[in-house]
Formats: sequence, structure tokens, C-alpha cells
Amino acid sequence: MNTAIIVAAGSGTRFNSEKPKQFVDLNGKPVLAHTLERFQACNDVDAVVVVLAEEHQPYFVELLNENPQITKVSFVVLGGRTRAESVRNGLNGVDPATEVVLVHDGARPLVTVGEIERVIAKAKETGAACLTAAVTDTIKQIDGDRIVGTVDRRELRRALTPQGFKLEILQKAFENADALDEPVSDESYLVEQLGVKVASVSGSSRNIKITHSEDLLIAEALLKDGNS
Amino acid sequence: MNTAIIVAAGSGTRFNSEKPKQFVDLNGKPVLAHTLERFQACNDVDAVVVVLAEEHQPYFVELLNENPQITKVSFVVLGGRTRAESVRNGLNGVDPATEVVLVHDGARPLVTVGEIERVIAKAKETGAACLTAAVTDTIKQIDGDRIVGTVDRRELRRALTPQGFKLEILQKAFENADALDEPVSDESYLVEQLGVKVASVSGSSRNIKITHSEDLLIAEALLKDGNS
Repeated sequence: MNTAIIVAAGSGTRFNSEKPKQFVDLNGKPVLAHTLERFQACNDVDAVVVVLAEEHQPYFVELLNENPQITKVSFVVLGGRTRAESVRNGLNGVDPATEVVLVHDGARPLVTVGEIERVIAKAKETGAACLTAAVTDTIKQIDGDRIVGTVDRRELRRALTPQGFKLEILQKAFENADALDEPVSDESYLVEQLGVKVASVSGSSRNIKITHSEDLLIAEALLKDGNS
Repeated sequence: MNTAIIVAAGSGTRFNSEKPKQFVDLNGKPVLAHTLERFQACNDVDAVVVVLAEEHQPYFVELLNENPQITKVSFVVLGGRTRAESVRNGLNGVDPATEVVLVHDGARPLVTVGEIERVIAKAKETGAACLTAAVTDTIKQIDGDRIVGTVDRRELRRALTPQGFKLEILQKAFENADALDEPVSDESYLVEQLGVKVASVSGSSRNIKITHSEDLLIAEALLKDGNS
């Protein structure tokens, strides 16, 4: 079996809204409901563990009540002080029979079933896979407020989610307790620290993360466009 | 005086539309008309040189006829085979009395007057300035389809436009003819090659470049949101 951990424990301090960003309305339902529907629709995903902030649990109960089509949620766990702690808590809710565990940002509602399938397949093959997209901007190396060089963007990719790992590999990455104190922005980083090579799986730039309020307008526009 | 070179010579092969992306409609007028209006509204900009592909000239004549509020266009020059050639052609249309020359992508219609002003002021002070935005994604270094590391994004910025330079500095950067054959994605790079330090000026992530068709929907959404 394969299990997805959906991280939705962010406080969303960069988002101007009463509700946290995972629960604001996007085309008639919460952002997180869109995200869960994508994993629901993927036949390779058997169970979903949702990581929530304690104070957001009432929003999640309401979400499940209003979206009975979402049936794969097997566990709800509480988030930690950091992203890494939240994912580690999520791991505690994963069925030990799991072969591949995915980690996905709850605030990426435009992930496609194809992206989820490809990450699972690659993680099964190589042990670790990260969805990525091209870097389209020119990237500058800075020192304070001075530009000191231009980075060759052909050697760079932007990390998206889901990221997928054989369960024992991700568990091992999280056993390194020190790692949890570093500013860890994704799970691939922790696995890279083990010396494990992570495969890059091509994803779409449409798979945006909703962080600022304008990202919600962008997600609406992309949903309207129909290919997301 | 200060002069802006607006580069609108792209063929837009990544854009699904009959018209090139600079001329497609965005909220009732061409993308390029929005861009020109932002420079029109900036009192620090005295003249605008537009770089066009030869086959797009009829679209531009129509744009000027339908937007008589745009009065600062002093020169229209034809684009070259590459971006660097296009900008060099633009430089030939710049009044020699110019102190700061700006280079801006015609397909960035959401640039603000404040961004233009700040780049001019910084270029006046230091000789060379580039508008930049934070890198919000986790950036991976890749080797083929393998991730070999995570880049510290605190040392990176995304280059936007406008970029501004004292006229003689940009002219000198373009005298290095070899540079024009390299895949040059921005003018700051050419100035960096001279050994000149370029100042980073903070811009907004709303100042997007319209490249793919979904970017037009995103620009519409951002315009509707009102702060762009």
C-alpha cells in the first residue's frame, strides 16, 4: 500500500484572512478539500494522513462533513512546532505496511493525479523521488544587497510536492534528530542528508503553493483554465 | 534625462495565440499598452524606446492609435536574433543625454511606478541596479534527473525588470561583442561580466512575466486584486 501525508498545519501568517489558507474557499470548497480530492482520485494512494494544527480541527470536521466523497483519510495527527516535526508526527500515523509514503503540502490544491502517480512509481523504483519544475527566472547570487553572480539555472529545479520515499528511508531520515532543528523546507533535503540520491520527477508549474492572498486568485484562474 | 528600453521583440513561441503575447488583450488593452502606461505614469522616465519584431509593427501602430495617452515613445527599433542583440539595437535609439537607461520586458505589464522609481534612484547612486524578488521555492541542484543538493535560497534572488544602468556602463557591457553570442537572459549579467557590482532593489512577486497562456489569467487576477 501507499500512504500520503498531507501537511496542513501551517498557521498561514503571510495570508490575510480570518481562516488559515488551507481552509479558505476556492471555487466553492476549502483549498484542502481540493487537495484531498486529488489524492482521493489517485488509485495508487490507499490512505491519507492529515497533519493539522490543533485549533484548526473544527474546520477539518466541517470539511469532511461537507465533502463525503473524501473517504481515504485514515488518520488525523497534530502538527509540531516546525514543518519537520509535523511530518514526523504524520509518520507516526502511517500504516507500517506502507511501501511508499508521500508528503504533500495541503496548500497545493492543483496537484494532478498524474503527478502523484509518477512520484509513487519513481519512488518505488529508486527509493526517493521529488516532484520538481523548471526554474524560469534568472537567478542571482547575492551578498547583502549586492548581486555577485548569475546562477546557471539549467542545473537548478524548483522542488514541488508530492515527494515520495520508501517508508524505511523517510523514517531513517527523521531518526537523525538534529536535522529537525535546522530550517528544513522539504523532506527531500532530510533524505539527501542521508546520502541517498533523490530522483527528480518533472511536474507542472501550475502546481502552485497557496501562500499569499493573490495565490488564491491565481489558483482560481488556473482552475478556470481547465487543465489543472 | 532617463530613458527606458522596452523589449517587445519576442516571438512568443511558448504562447498559444495568434497574436504575440505582448499584443494579446489584458483587461481591454494589449499587454504592451499596460506596460507602456506604467512608464508613462513615472515622472522620472523621459523617453521610451520600444524594440519590436518587424512583423509586429502593424500591431504597435494600432496600439498607439488606440492609446493616445501613451506619448513618451521616442523611438521604435527592430529586434535582433537574440535578446542581447535586441537590447543593443534599443541602445542605438537612446538619446546620448540619457543618464540612466532602464531595460524592461514588454511582457511585464504589472510593474509599478514605485519599482521603476526605485531602480532609477539606485542606478543613479551606484551605476547599476536590478529589480529582484525573493526565491520562495526550495531550489535543488540537479545532475541529469538526480537531485544532488539543496541550494541555500537566502543567498538567491530572482531577477525581474526593470534593470537600470548609467548609460556608459550598459554601452560598455555591449561593446564586449562575444557576450552577445552567449545565452544572455538579462542585462545585469552582461554588466556583472565587466566586474561592475550590481545593486539588488526589492521588487514584488506580482511583477510577473507573461510567457505561457495561463500567465495572462494570472495577470488578470492580479489586476482585479487591485494592488498591481
